[in-house]
Order: sequence, then structure tokens, then C-alpha cells
Amino acid sequence: MLENPGKSIEGGVCAPSGYQAHAVECGIKDVNNPRLDLGLIYSTEPACSVGVFTTNRIKAAPVKVSQNHLKATEVQAFLSNSGNANACTGADGVQDAKSCAKIVAKELGINMRQVAICSTGVIGLPLPIERMEAKLPELVAGLTSTNAQADIFAKSIMTSDTRQKEVAIEIEIDGKPVRIGACAKGAGMIKPSMATMLCFVTTDVKLPKESLQKAVLEATEQTFNRISIDGDMSTNDTVLLMANGASGVEIKRRNGKDCKLFNAGLRYVLDQLAREIVLDGEKVTKFVTLEVKNASSYLNAKKVAEAVANSPLVKCAWNGDDPNWGRVIHAVGYSRASLQEELIDIYWEKELACKGGKLGPASIAKLREVASKRAFTLTIDLNMGESDYTMYTSDLSPEYVDYNRSEYSYWKAVERNQG
Amino acid sequence: MLENPGKSIEGGVCAPSGYQAHAVECGIKDVNNPRLDLGLIYSTEPACSVGVFTTNRIKAAPVKVSQNHLKATEVQAFLSNSGNANACTGADGVQDAKSCAKIVAKELGINMRQVAICSTGVIGLPLPIERMEAKLPELVAGLTSTNAQADIFAKSIMTSDTRQKEVAIEIEIDGKPVRIGACAKGAGMIKPSMATMLCFVTTDVKLPKESLQKAVLEATEQTFNRISIDGDMSTNDTVLLMANGASGVEIKRRNGKDCKLFNAGLRYVLDQLAREIVLDGEKVTKFVTLEVKNASSYLNAKKVAEAVANSPLVKCAWNGDDPNWGRVIHAVGYSRASLQEELIDIYWEKELACKGGKLGPASIAKLREVASKRAFTLTIDLNMGESDYTMYTSDLSPEYVDYNRSEYSYWKAVERNQG
Repeated sequence: MLENPGKSIEGGVCAPSGYQAHAVECGIKDVNNPRLDLGLIYSTEPACSVGVFTTNRIKAAPVKVSQNHLKATEVQAFLSNSGNANACTGADGVQDAKSCAKIVAKELGINMRQVAICSTGVIGLPLPIERMEAKLPELVAGLTSTNAQADIFAKSIMTSDTRQKEVAIEIEIDGKPVRIGACAKGAGMIKPSMATMLCFVTTDVKLPKESLQKAVLEATEQTFNRISIDGDMSTNDTVLLMANGASGVEIKRRNGKDCKLFNAGLRYVLDQLAREIVLDGEKVTKFVTLEVKNASSYLNAKKVAEAVANSPLVKCAWNGDDPNWGRVIHAVGYSRASLQEELIDIYWEKELACKGGKLGPASIAKLREVASKRAFTLTIDLNMGESDYTMYTSDLSPEYVDYNRSEYSYWKAVERNQG
Repeated sequence: MLENPGKSIEGGVCAPSGYQAHAVECGIKDVNNPRLDLGLIYSTEPACSVGVFTTNRIKAAPVKVSQNHLKATEVQAFLSNSGNANACTGADGVQDAKSCAKIVAKELGINMRQVAICSTGVIGLPLPIERMEAKLPELVAGLTSTNAQADIFAKSIMTSDTRQKEVAIEIEIDGKPVRIGACAKGAGMIKPSMATMLCFVTTDVKLPKESLQKAVLEATEQTFNRISIDGDMSTNDTVLLMANGASGVEIKRRNGKDCKLFNAGLRYVLDQLAREIVLDGEKVTKFVTLEVKNASSYLNAKKVAEAVANSPLVKCAWNGDDPNWGRVIHAVGYSRASLQEELIDIYWEKELACKGGKLGPASIAKLREVASKRAFTLTIDLNMGESDYTMYTSDLSPEYVDYNRSEYSYWKAVERNQG
């Protein structure tokens, strides 16, 4: 568990100074049963924004639009909808995303390129653009800077999430308090690198754009890129970060101690959200901290961790409270990492299930005790070198499959979208 | 569906001339409830044998032993046990495998290196070697060459399979009949390349060892390496092929038409078994023929096929009769294949669900009709080049997870193995 370099505070994206948020029910998720599904975060002062996006070669329209906007200018507003991914919607999808940005910008009195946009939900259906266009003025009009509003925004980005995920911390820079606030959604399609996950981060410190970009890339690599629920990767994954300087504090030196402190704070915030995402994974019953130790290289450690974290048979065993080290080592073997079978040790917490590639001294009773816990650490020591890699991952449950075979079906989404 | 270059005949590994088989109940699967779990195939005449083995870096002891024996000499007997994989058992596991080969060889009057050995079942437990050693003389004594004996052998290699899998064909070479017989086991951990699958092939034609090795490698690549059930790959996968020339027919020219005919026959036999393995996959309800067409290269076609075939979310959708092309295209996108979103077409049989990366003209009703079938073909046309790749794959069911969270647990295996 990472240490908090500052202190936790109440709220989410409105905890830092100079931010407002709001969300409305637009009928994107379900036209006959409206829920919060259209949200906005706005910095009342000019801000510097950066993003990290999905590496899926099929990118949703809002990803393409936001990437362009972030390159072109200083984004000051984040618009988000759930219920429809606006992915695989061709030129019309891009047009729809731009049209939304345009309306929001007009209402806010900024340039349309100062609006970044995110979507999450079903792939392949056009956005209900008339309904959205009609709701956008109301969305902008309702912006305020309370924690309650940040909560409403955090709720509006949820899809199969069961609860909103918000974190805020305060750190001290130059003797003055600055804040980082964030919210995220996750649940399904969670895999390195990134997932159907959206994350919005705000801070009231001021940083050079390069430092901000570096900070969010590094923090994402160490947090969201190390979680896995079902081994899938979405078309929409996005982390957006906005820094407005409203605290009056500016970090000028790129690699100085203030910058490092900010980076540590950002990493802590994203790490908290990454944990939350796994804990709230679709029908998840286990939170597994998977440690790969002493690999011959960073890449080998990562390969082993990802192979184990994504093995359906390993995940089924976790679901069944089964300390099945044979399934773990078989996934280690097909990871393509360089390894020596006779050096591999596997632990459930402190219990040595496999020693030197063979049955270890731990008793079945002790192993089952650990495997039955809601959360445990599984350690694979390759005893080959000095590289480590840690991931947060989950089990695979019959309920996950049942949920994804029915609840989120394409044709039900079509039905829900028909106005 | 491949065409049979000859005709189907009754039986399995004893259909070709000069082969005997037998199997016994040894209590390896469950000491208190013995089932067939120890089997033997024997060529009564000197034979030429070759094998293809798992590419998992953790290889089971019998894999290591068999690889050495096949390199050293002409193997004439295949010994197999189910219920215990003899994997991750260290030097003792190798010793146990050799000890079994030694006893069988002594009873048959051949060299111990003329015995290849396969194991399948739980990983990480020592073989119940005393029980096995005690049963081996009875196993050898019972060898006969009937189809009924071949059936018993085919049953003895089953683990979570629900039925035995046998194929035999007769082809004509030089105007004379020669036969190829085979059996296989599959069920879980099925993924390219290879799976927890064992396959034993016999033929009564005579071929040079190099031709035989090439034939089995190519046929495996085109069949067993193109199936996927759960995306896992085992430590024990093995295909063994024995050719004894008992038909009196010898193929001398390495790439002549007789050799090609034999290769086609072998490929047909393995293709039939590959289909059987998917159809009998653990708790499988769908048989999906996944065609990737017009990729820019063979490797790109393969990447796309494997990404889609192994995506849990795609497989859940198949289980739910859901023509969810969005999940298919998202897996296409993360496959790392080179592609252009706006060129991708996706079909459920003849129904165009996605055209040019967007919603296609097919009606939801027609798509659901196809997606509800027990078996259907899903075609992904990348429209980029001329390379195709086809796989056989299956859905992922809640029952699969439930089965693998409990039935095959490590601690239950430990209990079943305690004498």
C-alpha cells in the first residue's frame, strides 16, 4: 500500500480550488428510465490539461477528438457521457462529439477546442445526439463547486460500477496547501494497459504542461496499467488531468522536490482509484495483490504477472478459495518470460505452496485459510534477478459470465436506446 | 470442413494393422473410486515414432522423458495416465516416469527408451508410483488389437472430457489400403498453441522419420494449434504418432503425391479430433468457426483471430446468444494487428453486423437468429490484403467457471490422491 504524501480530504474533483461540476439525466443509458449519464467538469480559471488514452487501435470518436483538442490548446472543461461509447460510429461519431463540445463551449464562453470529451458504454451505436444537445445548456447552467456536485458527476460516469469512486488529498508545497481531486469508473474490460475506465483529475497547483504530461503518464503506468479484471481492453480508456493554479502555488522546476511531491500525490490518488476499480470489478469476490519478484528483467516480471493475472483458470481457482499453485505455475510457464522451473517459489501470503518448482512445505489447511480471504497477496519469486512487478487483480466468477452474457447485451442496448 | 481424402472406418488407434491397446483402473484419478486411468498402445512390429509437444516453458516430467526417448531411438509403445499430470514434480517426477517406462519395456521385451509416456491431470502432486508400478504388468498382459480395446484406451485418457474422441480413416496408396487411427483428449486449458490435450495417432504405412515429423508438425499447426476454449495452455500437451508399415505399403518419396495424400489424411484426422475437442470443451454451449479474412499478413490474421477467440467478453456474449459486434471489434483493436477501422466488416454467417467499422445493415432479429444457433461462423474481413486464418472456438459459460472453481480444485485432488 502506497503512503499518502499528504492527507486525505473530503470530496472529489471539486476539492481543489476553482472547479465546478454538474451532471444530468439525459436518457442515454435508458430512454425510458433516465439516470445520471451526462456530466461536466469546468475550471473557472484558465487551466493546463493533459491526457492518457487507450492503446487499442480502434479508438472511440471522443478519444480522437480529445487528443486533437489537448494538442491544439488549453482545455478547460471535461464533458462525459455514459451509456454509449460513441465507438465504431465513423465520421458521424466524430461529428457528434464535436457538436457536443461546441454547445458546451458556447454556453461557457470558451473555444470548442477547450472542451475534452469522454464516452463509455455500448460500442457501435450512434449517440442519441438530439437528446444530448437539448440537455447540454441545462448541464452547463447547473455547474457549482460543491463536493455534492462532484459526487453527482462521479455517479454520472458509472456503467456497471456499483458505487462512485472519488479521492481527494491535500499536500503542502512551499508551505502552502494544494489539492488533487479525482474520480474514476471501471468495472469491466479491465486489463493492462488501461481499461474501459475513465478517470478525471483536477488540481489547483500550476505546473508546466511537460511536467504534467510526464506525471500523468508515469502515474498511469504504475497504477491503472497494473490492474486486471477480465483481460479485455476498451476503445475508450482515458485519464484526463487539469491543473489551474487556483491555489496560487506554482511548481516551476521540472524535476525538483516539489515536482516529485506532486508526482507522489498524483500516484497515490490514482493508486487509490485503481484499487477501488478492482474491488468494484464486475461480480468480483477477491482482491489479489500479485507480486512477481526477482525476475531477470522488468519485462520478464511484467510478462509473468500479466499471464497469471489474466489466466481464466487461475481466476476460477481464486473464486473457489482454491490455493491451486499448479495453475499459477502453468501460467508462469506460458508467459514467455525467461525462467528456471527449479528456482520458482510461490507463496499465498507467507505460506510457501511451491518451493523450487515443486510442492512446498505449506499445509493445505493453511493455504486454504489464506485463499479463503477476501483479499490476499500471492507472491511468485522467480529467483533469477532483481526485477519486481506488482499488480492488483481479481477472481473470475460464474456471476461475471452470467452478467456479461445478458445484462450488457447488444440488443438490450439497442432496445434501451430506441426513443 | 475439410474433405476426407479417403473413407471413414470403424475404430481408433487399433484400426491400422499391427497395433494393440489396453487400459486399467489404477486409482490415479481417485483411489477410493477407481476409473480407467492407465493405458497403453503398442505396435507389435518395429515402428517409427515422432511427437509434437507443449511450448509451455514449464514442461511436465513425461514430456521431458518422451522427448529424449523419441530422439534416442524408435519408440514402439505409448503409455498414458490421467488424473495426475506429473508436472512440477522435479527430479522425482522424471524418475517416476522412467520407472514406469522401464517396467512396461521389460514386460514387452523392448528397451525402456522405446516407450514414450504422457500424463494429464492435476499439476504439482507426485504420481502414486507404487500403485502404478503394481498395475503395469496387468496393463501389458491385457493388450489386444480390437476396436473395443482402442475404445477403452481412449476412455482412459479422459479427464473432464464427457466422451471419448476417436477417428479412423482408410486411404489408398499405390492401389493398396493404409489406415490412420487416432484418439485424443481435451476439454480445459485449450488454447493455441496446443492445450491440455493428448493425441495418439497410429498408422500402418511406412514413412521416413523426417516425413513423419514434418507431417505431424504441419497437421498440428493447422488443427490443434487453431482451437481455443479458455485461453490457457498446459504443461503436458502432446501429440504422438507411430508408423509401423504393417500394411506393407511404404512411402519413399518425401514430397511425392503419396506423401501428400498421407499428409491430407493425417490433417483430416486431427481436424476431426480438434473439432471434437472444442465441441466437448468444458461446459461449452457454442461451436464458433472464426474466420479472419484479407489481413495484410498471415501473422496479422492470426493475431486478430487469437485476440477475438480468447476475449472473455466476446465469449460471454456468444454464451448469451448476443451478436455483440462491438465486443468483437474491440478485441480486433487490441490484437496489435495492423488494420484500418473503416475497412472492417463483421458477419454472423451471411449477416453483415458491422460494415466499414460501423453499424451494418443486418437486422437485430436476423443477427440474433444466427447468434442463437449451437454452431455458427463469425467472419471478420479486414479488407487489407490476402491472408486468411480460421480457428475453432467456443463460448465461456457461467458453468465453466463454476466447474473450474470447484470440481478440479487442488485440495480435492490432494484428497482423492491420499490412499
